[in-house]
Amino acid sequence: MREVAVIATGLTAFGAFPETTIRELGAAAGRECLAAAGVEADRVDGFYLGCFAGPSFTGQNHLAPWVASAIGVHGAPATRFEAACASSGAAFAHAWAAVAGGLQEMALVVGAEQMTVQPTARTAEILAAAGDVADEAALGATFPALFALIARRHMHEWGTTREHLAAVAVKNHANGLLNPKAHLRKAVTLEKALTGRMICDPLTLYDCSLISDGAAALLLAPVDTARGLTDKPVRVLGVAQASDRLALADKADATSFPAVRAAAQKAFAMAGVGPDEIDVAELHDCFTIAELVALEDLGLFPRGQAGPATLEGRTALAGDRPINPSGGLKSKGHPVGATGAAQVVEIVRQLRGESGERQIAGARLGLTQNLGGSGASCVVGVFGA
Amino acid sequence: MREVAVIATGLTAFGAFPETTIRELGAAAGRECLAAAGVEADRVDGFYLGCFAGPSFTGQNHLAPWVASAIGVHGAPATRFEAACASSGAAFAHAWAAVAGGLQEMALVVGAEQMTVQPTARTAEILAAAGDVADEAALGATFPALFALIARRHMHEWGTTREHLAAVAVKNHANGLLNPKAHLRKAVTLEKALTGRMICDPLTLYDCSLISDGAAALLLAPVDTARGLTDKPVRVLGVAQASDRLALADKADATSFPAVRAAAQKAFAMAGVGPDEIDVAELHDCFTIAELVALEDLGLFPRGQAGPATLEGRTALAGDRPINPSGGLKSKGHPVGATGAAQVVEIVRQLRGESGERQIAGARLGLTQNLGGSGASCVVGVFGA
Repeated sequence: MREVAVIATGLTAFGAFPETTIRELGAAAGRECLAAAGVEADRVDGFYLGCFAGPSFTGQNHLAPWVASAIGVHGAPATRFEAACASSGAAFAHAWAAVAGGLQEMALVVGAEQMTVQPTARTAEILAAAGDVADEAALGATFPALFALIARRHMHEWGTTREHLAAVAVKNHANGLLNPKAHLRKAVTLEKALTGRMICDPLTLYDCSLISDGAAALLLAPVDTARGLTDKPVRVLGVAQASDRLALADKADATSFPAVRAAAQKAFAMAGVGPDEIDVAELHDCFTIAELVALEDLGLFPRGQAGPATLEGRTALAGDRPINPSGGLKSKGHPVGATGAAQVVEIVRQLRGESGERQIAGARLGLTQNLGGSGASCVVGVFGA
Repeated sequence: MREVAVIATGLTAFGAFPETTIRELGAAAGRECLAAAGVEADRVDGFYLGCFAGPSFTGQNHLAPWVASAIGVHGAPATRFEAACASSGAAFAHAWAAVAGGLQEMALVVGAEQMTVQPTARTAEILAAAGDVADEAALGATFPALFALIARRHMHEWGTTREHLAAVAVKNHANGLLNPKAHLRKAVTLEKALTGRMICDPLTLYDCSLISDGAAALLLAPVDTARGLTDKPVRVLGVAQASDRLALADKADATSFPAVRAAAQKAFAMAGVGPDEIDVAELHDCFTIAELVALEDLGLFPRGQAGPATLEGRTALAGDRPINPSGGLKSKGHPVGATGAAQVVEIVRQLRGESGERQIAGARLGLTQNLGGSGASCVVGVFGA
């Protein structure tokens, strides 16, 4: 296996862009990424599109060659990867495998989703299809309901409080305020988060991530090639994907995701590092409770301690364990298929020291955790400057 | 790169099964495949689902862990691959890469689609999304129309006739009659095919493949492991995927698919064999004209010669170049996401001498060609006994 590096990144603004197309969003991120590396499109020998529900949102399927050709990538294998909200995490993991295995020299990953083109009720239905439709979604268990159940159980088992949840929102909104690409840039106080409109008890509006449009891109190459194209290659030290049952009801423990634990264990082992060595991480905060569960599943905090640690400010930019400097899905936004790739974009830029006002000083080791559904898919990556 | 073998296969009947689910179809093929190899589900370390439009047809997304968990595969990375009608070809190509690259030891590929659950008009709309929706499908250019244009141009450029097209249908229906798993097992005469109901001139009902439900599965492992599990491993000698522009209008030549030529060239080079050495092939006859174009793009016949050769019987079971012994998409059926994997199932069984009445005697080298859209995706595989 060859050592692989991310040599360039691209990222559109996240927001509501119903007037553009998913093709143009994906192509904009892809073109920015190639231009940043100074690489012509015809050098790309593998194209990996992460997209969850492009056909349902936009009516266009067969999206991989559709986006690739708009970037000028013609001929190379072009495939769409779907693993719910971990779709571009999965695309990244497979692109890494092709380069690491010696099959490809220059793999372009694009994650894209355009969600605001559908009415809210239809969007909720499309998103609910990432869970068990027949036995959960059809009975009303959409994702806010599923994560509300997870939150309630976490409160019961581990003493987590609504303040702990709200503290995640407050912190991620504070970070997003420093991110020019973020969808919802506004400060949120703890009081405001606690008194937000109730969506599904105990989750208020401020506990839920956003419905967004956007795209992100990554260019992967062997480290040896990378050195000729950039003086700041970021090495992929570990990457792993894992799966689990779709239905929340089928999980033995609603407050922990086995797929996250399995993917983290493999990625850490591959990287030869442990959670305590991670300087900065982008975690999948589709709901505030999801960030707390991820912090515990990844071993960044002991179980039951992620909430108090967040309230104490330990996961803030200035804390000892900064999480979601980008603003996360909560403030940056959550164009589902773009999220996994966008997490890697943020970590790569942090490790390169390019993150401006939200830069974590001296960050050398970063982590991404991209979750699909109510935990049935997960991709974890570990990156080194 | 390690040498990879297909060590077992699974295949459901193809047909109209609206009462079951896509999960059960995929799981049935996957379970049959594992049972054939005598391999427990927990040995599978990569799960690759090829499915084109499961969410649109069935309302359920996040299908890879959904199908995997029904087979008993829990924890392994599980991803859905979409490349239109070449979706399970793409899943197979990526599974091969993971095993060849040393990343996985036992990769399970499942291709599945359930199409008969939607009314015909909605099905046509879902299928049309594999092409350029805004500039072609929305103007009425559904797939029968696109392939009718290709057929007309092929007639104009290369002298192909309606008899040549009809001869593909006659031959594939004759083969499908010998395949117990085929969807439409009935003999069709040349006269009947020529006088079928016109769908889109020059294509009659008999020039079009079927709307089907079904699933196929493949278990891949390194050749060294394979030898301990089966005495008939079939080696993957070459596999390649290529892409092209989505819109037919954007192609320089409507009678040839650059993605097919590129994938074939790479797969032949990898295998170290040429088209003349192929004993048996499964080609993507979504329309009769598609089989003729594929025969020419693959170099199995010179341009303009595939039609006459078919009419002369050279591609029949008893011909010197047998094509689509399974009955092809025309008679076996075309559950879109299952097709690429099902092609490999047929070739593996042919090379093992397990194809009963439709066995090609002494077949040692086989080929599969799986097409997506109007040629924007293609996967070609070359297999050796």
